[in-house]
Amino acid sequence: MTELEKMGAAAKAAERVLAVAGTSKKNQALEAIASALVHNKDRILEANALDIKNAESAGIKRAFLDRLLLTGERIDGVAKGVSEVIALPDPIGEVIAMSNSPNGLTIGKKRVPLGIIGIIYEARPNVTVDAAVLCLKAGNACILRGGKEAIHSNAMLVDIMREALAASGLPEDCICLVRDTSRESAKELMGLRAYVDVLIPRGGSGLIKSVVENASVPVIETGSGNCHVYVDDAADLEMAARIVENAKCSRPSVCNAMETLLVNEAVAEQYLPLVQPRLNKYNVELRCDEKSLKILGESAIPATEADWETEYDDYILAIKVVKDMDEAMAHIARYGTGHSEAIVTNDYTRAQRFLNEVDAAAVYVNASTRFTDGGEFGLGAEIGISTQKMHARGPMGLREITSTKYVIYGNGQIR
Amino acid sequence: MTELEKMGAAAKAAERVLAVAGTSKKNQALEAIASALVHNKDRILEANALDIKNAESAGIKRAFLDRLLLTGERIDGVAKGVSEVIALPDPIGEVIAMSNSPNGLTIGKKRVPLGIIGIIYEARPNVTVDAAVLCLKAGNACILRGGKEAIHSNAMLVDIMREALAASGLPEDCICLVRDTSRESAKELMGLRAYVDVLIPRGGSGLIKSVVENASVPVIETGSGNCHVYVDDAADLEMAARIVENAKCSRPSVCNAMETLLVNEAVAEQYLPLVQPRLNKYNVELRCDEKSLKILGESAIPATEADWETEYDDYILAIKVVKDMDEAMAHIARYGTGHSEAIVTNDYTRAQRFLNEVDAAAVYVNASTRFTDGGEFGLGAEIGISTQKMHARGPMGLREITSTKYVIYGNGQIR
Repeated sequence: MTELEKMGAAAKAAERVLAVAGTSKKNQALEAIASALVHNKDRILEANALDIKNAESAGIKRAFLDRLLLTGERIDGVAKGVSEVIALPDPIGEVIAMSNSPNGLTIGKKRVPLGIIGIIYEARPNVTVDAAVLCLKAGNACILRGGKEAIHSNAMLVDIMREALAASGLPEDCICLVRDTSRESAKELMGLRAYVDVLIPRGGSGLIKSVVENASVPVIETGSGNCHVYVDDAADLEMAARIVENAKCSRPSVCNAMETLLVNEAVAEQYLPLVQPRLNKYNVELRCDEKSLKILGESAIPATEADWETEYDDYILAIKVVKDMDEAMAHIARYGTGHSEAIVTNDYTRAQRFLNEVDAAAVYVNASTRFTDGGEFGLGAEIGISTQKMHARGPMGLREITSTKYVIYGNGQIR
Repeated sequence: MTELEKMGAAAKAAERVLAVAGTSKKNQALEAIASALVHNKDRILEANALDIKNAESAGIKRAFLDRLLLTGERIDGVAKGVSEVIALPDPIGEVIAMSNSPNGLTIGKKRVPLGIIGIIYEARPNVTVDAAVLCLKAGNACILRGGKEAIHSNAMLVDIMREALAASGLPEDCICLVRDTSRESAKELMGLRAYVDVLIPRGGSGLIKSVVENASVPVIETGSGNCHVYVDDAADLEMAARIVENAKCSRPSVCNAMETLLVNEAVAEQYLPLVQPRLNKYNVELRCDEKSLKILGESAIPATEADWETEYDDYILAIKVVKDMDEAMAHIARYGTGHSEAIVTNDYTRAQRFLNEVDAAAVYVNASTRFTDGGEFGLGAEIGISTQKMHARGPMGLREITSTKYVIYGNGQIR
């Protein structure tokens, strides 16, 4: 047995206990984790300082360092997140349906944990705690495999969580960390079918692509968001300007931010000069097709084919003028990643068509794409946003990291 | 573009039409398919005769030939199956949940097709029609890749279904067949992520293992069933004998048939002689651990480790005497495939523990494992039985081959 197989076997044994542990027990453990994080702030900050120092000497760039950095305040925020998970209803044990069959069997469909969830992520130590506690609340053991730059922070956070688990009477192997951060360890985890039920990659598109292509364990694909807003000729243009400003500029680095603006040609000359000053406030770089370039003039630059495909995650916006809604929907079908798509219109029929025909996790009429989020959708917390169609689609909360089983009560039935 | 990529693109275009086609349109197409199958019986039987002839000259064994064989009666049965699918409610468009968020957004979760479903299967031509019509009813296009021995039958069935689609105004590429039956074509289909949303393998464990290990397209694992019945010391032994006879002998070739009998040691000496004559009626070969061998005597043979792992799909039963329910559950956890597991007992606490702690798609108290079936569970028809925990678990009907999307109605909301 390899080290990772041993970890898988230990997590599986722990999961059998956790799966039937009951809500109070799980919440007690989560309380213990929240409190241990706050009480061990010094140990965490010390470990994090080491990661930061190593990253700085490796010449790693600022934005990356900011994601890696923990502060007292951020640790408090992480602990507060744990408390919010405690407050969420426990999805496990819920009977989704139960009925009697003609032969007298009572057949129920009951919510159960998925089992062991593997999380492969980058150098954001907050993911270590967020993911572990969501898995725990839904009765799942987890095997975490974070980026090598965060290894000291992650190891400390996991040690602290495991101590808290042990103190509250749950097996510490409910939360496991792959401490070997080589490429090989990630690859081995992707193939650990004997133990891992589901893999959830969290991070940039390169990471997700690599997991999707290499894993034999079932994967839930998350995150990549090439989102569009289509401004129809029947739109309230002031509303459309507010929505586009918000969708692009309120937090451009996240996956539900807008990347391409599609404008109906009948209103392009009126709309683009209206939205331009709102985008200028944030120095948004505008990459335009021929028609919009003519309207926006020298403050914009020409777009290339690559711009339609790119998730900038930055203050950059691609703009294209389209003949009609069909051209807009065809563009979305071709370049969209199935994350979040919006139309701004007051035309009833077009609104309904857009909702029906656009194939994405979240489709909006007259609202910003930025709402695609577990909190906003009432899921309480989220472990990621699925952009695949299998198992879960859109923001994934506790329910989305569960499975079901049929329970059948008989009194001697045979077939 | 390869031939298969072209097929994928054509199926995708067809799927965009089918996804919004509406129930009447889909049911009309299904009516046309059912009627075309009956009216073209001669063409189908002719194509099938060619497959049978080729298989016979290749010296292929009887049981296989029987699965490959179509008769007039069997074609009527397949057409009747299509009519039953017409009668099922259309899952598409159902709004599972809808509510208003505090900021006035109306957020709904709506059932939509999965998209394109790839089906990789063996030489059972009935699967060609069954799978295609279930996919169609749930708004999915399908790409079928059947075994090479059935290629003439499959090609004819697909031609007839495509003619019926065209005649009823739906794109014929809603149903596609990979006519190249080389290993390479199956492999290419397993990697066709750009077009295929989900792969469902249907067939023996070798086929399923190969798909699971080689596919980068998301897979729903189906079918392998190493099922157990545990006879507790608090069981009604007459009931336990009836259930074991049924679970083993009513149809041993299917995945929900029982493979191993676990008997509590306190009742083994009384129970085994009671069930033995029932199994003898079917000449069931008994492969026994040491204790049960002593009780059953020379009519049984010793089991080896391999017997606990084997899905016989035949008139063979492995038998093991266990100390208690915990040993039975540990055996099931180790050797079970998570399909169907049963306990026979009148002890309330043990019944509840078995239901809670055994990790399988279907867990039974006092009933035969043979009930794990889409029809029996009220799903109407089934496209397979999932033994994985992601997306769907247990029998998969129409709902299980759908996804969801969030539809959001706003009036200018920004975040």
